[in-house]
Amino acid sequence: MYFETFSQMKKQLGQLGKWLETAAAHAKAKSFDPNLYLGFRLAPDQLPFVKQVQIACDAAKLGASRLTGKAAPSHADTEQTLEELGARVRSTIEYLDTLTAKDFEGAATRVISNPRWEGKVMSGADNFLEHIVPNFYFHLTHSYALLRHNGVNLGKADYLGTLSLRAP
Amino acid sequence: MYFETFSQMKKQLGQLGKWLETAAAHAKAKSFDPNLYLGFRLAPDQLPFVKQVQIACDAAKLGASRLTGKAAPSHADTEQTLEELGARVRSTIEYLDTLTAKDFEGAATRVISNPRWEGKVMSGADNFLEHIVPNFYFHLTHSYALLRHNGVNLGKADYLGTLSLRAP
Repeated sequence: MYFETFSQMKKQLGQLGKWLETAAAHAKAKSFDPNLYLGFRLAPDQLPFVKQVQIACDAAKLGASRLTGKAAPSHADTEQTLEELGARVRSTIEYLDTLTAKDFEGAATRVISNPRWEGKVMSGADNFLEHIVPNFYFHLTHSYALLRHNGVNLGKADYLGTLSLRAP
Repeated sequence: MYFETFSQMKKQLGQLGKWLETAAAHAKAKSFDPNLYLGFRLAPDQLPFVKQVQIACDAAKLGASRLTGKAAPSHADTEQTLEELGARVRSTIEYLDTLTAKDFEGAATRVISNPRWEGKVMSGADNFLEHIVPNFYFHLTHSYALLRHNGVNLGKADYLGTLSLRAP
């Protein structure tokens, strides 16, 4: 289910790209600088919007790269405009688009390390369940919540996107 | 991976239970009524904290019930205190504790229906990936963000909980 979950993350990043467009239109309608969004925070000691979007992208990109061993594009975290953030999201989606189900074979037993873990490691399966997925949705939802908090007209359908409904 | 993901949701609900305790301690230290949290919102047209917690619980509970066919306990959505919300979280965890990996056999091909879908259905696999998981984390993260926005001292470690780190 790794491939399917990263496909879902790709879909969610597509929704995030649409939220940025809705936010830009809201700023235009209200005559404020759309790049102000990048500095907004829900608490003084929480990361600002620009970081929430960057980390949502990286949770998907770096998570997929660690589980597949496929090199991911580097991003310098230098976005200063809403448009540049949109390009960051699109670049992440493009990387995820290159991955196939076969690339995730053996993901569960890969050994994942992190400088913060002081020499310890996680299995790919544990890392996926306990860190990649919760962390992705954490930053994705904070991005959404920050826009909602600042008046952007979004709803649950914008969050979820189109569901795969079919005839019974 | 259904069972493992619901186990992870159970872990996340355990973290949510701890956030409620931290929120209660914060209210006590600042001498305000802890039950005020239940009405807080990030936007006037978003659901308040009490609903965010209830829906996070229900996304896990009802999602697991639909994928396993195992009856879930009914909750009347009548919580009026932080303590009652804590009991709701614990009751949800207790239900998830009754489920085994075997209960999720055949989950992917179950047919999921919903009055909102106007007669259409989703497969269990699609419902899990496209709705249950994103919706669970949406409301879990909104619960967290609402507390952070209102001054409760939480951080990423409180969100993720303990990771399954091991020696290399």
